[in-house]
Amino acid sequence: MKQHGVDTPTKKPAGSAGNASRRKFLGMGAVLGGLLTACQTTDIGEEKGPSPLGRPLRAYGERSANETSQRFMRPGKHPELGATRTPLQDSHGMITPSGLHFERHHAGIPDIDPAEHRLMIHGMVERPLIFTVEEIRRLPSVSQIHFVECAGNGGGEWGAKTAPSAELSHGLASCSEWTGVPLRLLLEEAGVKSGASWLLAEGADACHMQRSVPLDKALDDVIVAYGQNGEAIRPEQGYPLRLVVPGFEGNMNVKWLRRIKVDDTPYMTRNETSKYSELQDDGTAWIFTYPMDAKSVITYPSGGHKLNSQGAHEIRGLAWSGRGTISRVEVSTDDGGTWQDAELQEPRLPMAFTRFRIPWSWEGGDVVIQSRSTDDTGYVQPPTAALIEERGTKSVYHHNGIKAWKVNADGSVTNADA
Amino acid sequence: MKQHGVDTPTKKPAGSAGNASRRKFLGMGAVLGGLLTACQTTDIGEEKGPSPLGRPLRAYGERSANETSQRFMRPGKHPELGATRTPLQDSHGMITPSGLHFERHHAGIPDIDPAEHRLMIHGMVERPLIFTVEEIRRLPSVSQIHFVECAGNGGGEWGAKTAPSAELSHGLASCSEWTGVPLRLLLEEAGVKSGASWLLAEGADACHMQRSVPLDKALDDVIVAYGQNGEAIRPEQGYPLRLVVPGFEGNMNVKWLRRIKVDDTPYMTRNETSKYSELQDDGTAWIFTYPMDAKSVITYPSGGHKLNSQGAHEIRGLAWSGRGTISRVEVSTDDGGTWQDAELQEPRLPMAFTRFRIPWSWEGGDVVIQSRSTDDTGYVQPPTAALIEERGTKSVYHHNGIKAWKVNADGSVTNADA
Repeated sequence: MKQHGVDTPTKKPAGSAGNASRRKFLGMGAVLGGLLTACQTTDIGEEKGPSPLGRPLRAYGERSANETSQRFMRPGKHPELGATRTPLQDSHGMITPSGLHFERHHAGIPDIDPAEHRLMIHGMVERPLIFTVEEIRRLPSVSQIHFVECAGNGGGEWGAKTAPSAELSHGLASCSEWTGVPLRLLLEEAGVKSGASWLLAEGADACHMQRSVPLDKALDDVIVAYGQNGEAIRPEQGYPLRLVVPGFEGNMNVKWLRRIKVDDTPYMTRNETSKYSELQDDGTAWIFTYPMDAKSVITYPSGGHKLNSQGAHEIRGLAWSGRGTISRVEVSTDDGGTWQDAELQEPRLPMAFTRFRIPWSWEGGDVVIQSRSTDDTGYVQPPTAALIEERGTKSVYHHNGIKAWKVNADGSVTNADA
Repeated sequence: MKQHGVDTPTKKPAGSAGNASRRKFLGMGAVLGGLLTACQTTDIGEEKGPSPLGRPLRAYGERSANETSQRFMRPGKHPELGATRTPLQDSHGMITPSGLHFERHHAGIPDIDPAEHRLMIHGMVERPLIFTVEEIRRLPSVSQIHFVECAGNGGGEWGAKTAPSAELSHGLASCSEWTGVPLRLLLEEAGVKSGASWLLAEGADACHMQRSVPLDKALDDVIVAYGQNGEAIRPEQGYPLRLVVPGFEGNMNVKWLRRIKVDDTPYMTRNETSKYSELQDDGTAWIFTYPMDAKSVITYPSGGHKLNSQGAHEIRGLAWSGRGTISRVEVSTDDGGTWQDAELQEPRLPMAFTRFRIPWSWEGGDVVIQSRSTDDTGYVQPPTAALIEERGTKSVYHHNGIKAWKVNADGSVTNADA
């Protein structure tokens, strides 16, 4: 077949290069040399006559049947009460696909008709207000890319670190573009009374999830969100309305939001006293430890991956901080002996995932790789030992220690601490 | 029910404010006054006893059954050969949900097994190369948020403007976070020979879509992408590999990419001569008109919407430029008589959608609204009349004229030019 003088790829290219020239791949010398070993023996396929037309258009797209990455779900009797995790080991960029955003429900996902749903603002306000979803959608809006991270993310890292994958160690964190109305606007219209300092946010799920939120945060950057990654928030992320509390522990980002009560005291609800508080060795507990401190995790290669050849690989990962913008990520490939700065993907946004990358050549053998992030407050992600020295091991929450993976001689990747 | 001293929302708030105080909503005086008329007569529902547990976790999420926004598909005999459009009138923020990214196929969507797919780079290169998808995924990568816009987007706007909605007038444009390897790296490894100035990109669909790409663009910012919005590219966007040619007409962002041939001449393929070229009144045609010029469209309110009350609304829209970053969007609500600067959502990224917003009060009656964008080259989106004066009306491509919607006295919104 000839068409407009264009060659068709029916034959293996005559000039196919050998290993020697391939070792100059990308100007990195031998770094990427091992990568292309297979190239010589493959081609892009013989033409087999006219191709049939492909699949037709459709009104709402789905992923390829060849893509099977999914949220991990621990088997259990009550799947309404548990969590699923984002498969970070398969992730690209900073946006989490909405279908793979982690879930953490305390009473399942309510089935809410947005036409019937209401948001009430009351308590210490001049003018109690009730909004329909349609009214909320008409108000002045913003779109912000933020992560949401469960306070319990990495909880298994306090003790024996057995998580076999980034999904199981760090997958209770995801990042979306959220669209909604700044809560500040709603509170200004309601007229917050003098002396108010807190609010209670409540969900419409069966357990009526309740969390206290400091008023100064509410007036700063909190969003009453109805949009996620360009469409309506997904049911499991709070459809039709959720609170987005940038950088604060996930549980405060109340889903299926139906009520905000302004007050002069926190509410000491179950999910900020018996849960989502941090028990110390002396029997006291830290409460209201809201911001998620700077953290990072290598997503490739990470637990469960299998490197099928030595040579060039790109180490990739995600870093985030609940206190601001990621300013630096360092990577070690010698068990913490030395550290190199990774490249940070722009735009780096506050309280959002930042993708980091660094070239690496696997020369075989056992290698321990890890990352540590720094945010624009100057805070550096600590080793787990430092966290334990400060806080003990009685709490499962707010673990942001450095995470290590081990590339084994056979190419398998496992938890370095397992 | 009392729980930890927290009131439950079983009763209508006693202090519910009347219209008079509502008119101060958000400090905008009467601007938002009309919005809250309905609030007094609604509440958030009586408690009906204990709520049942909601729906359980699932491995891959889907949107609510209440959300029915979909890609418009024109009925026809050959749905493999047509297009679907992004419902921009329902959009939030800058990311297009992958399920709603527009489609334009010339021979349907091929069903490709990524394990069998190959990308060949040959022609005027020192070392022809063939890559597996797995090899591509190992290489140094980038993630960039870019729009893709069909050159024919807005084609109906050259003549009688009858499109009843933003989807039908402007929905052949979408915006995603794309992840992949810079094409420059692949070309550097292949070793582009002296004298080369073009390349041919070819898809693996049944028509073997072919487009010529200038080498300088290929070496600048073109990506061989495998990721879209955090997961693998969707089948209808080129799974497993597509070219992303930032800012250039959509057709050049070759999907199901299988071959790149480097040469010293463009290939004059069917889709850059008989199609995707711009016929002028004198019978000549413009070809290789690649960048999509600065454009914008108001997405709310837009054709098909129905305003159910006067008073405050937020006019929202999307702006983009294939030549750089959007620096300004102006909105007129008096049929072009006066223009006001809209607020631009940050981050503003090159060759990406930028969401713009401006408060507006509908005081009833007929109102014509429109937007015009400016990019950082200083180029200002022109009126359609100026486009026609320059280029005539024989081409359907590259229409970026100012778009007007008419809010009618009954609240319906229609094409202002229909």
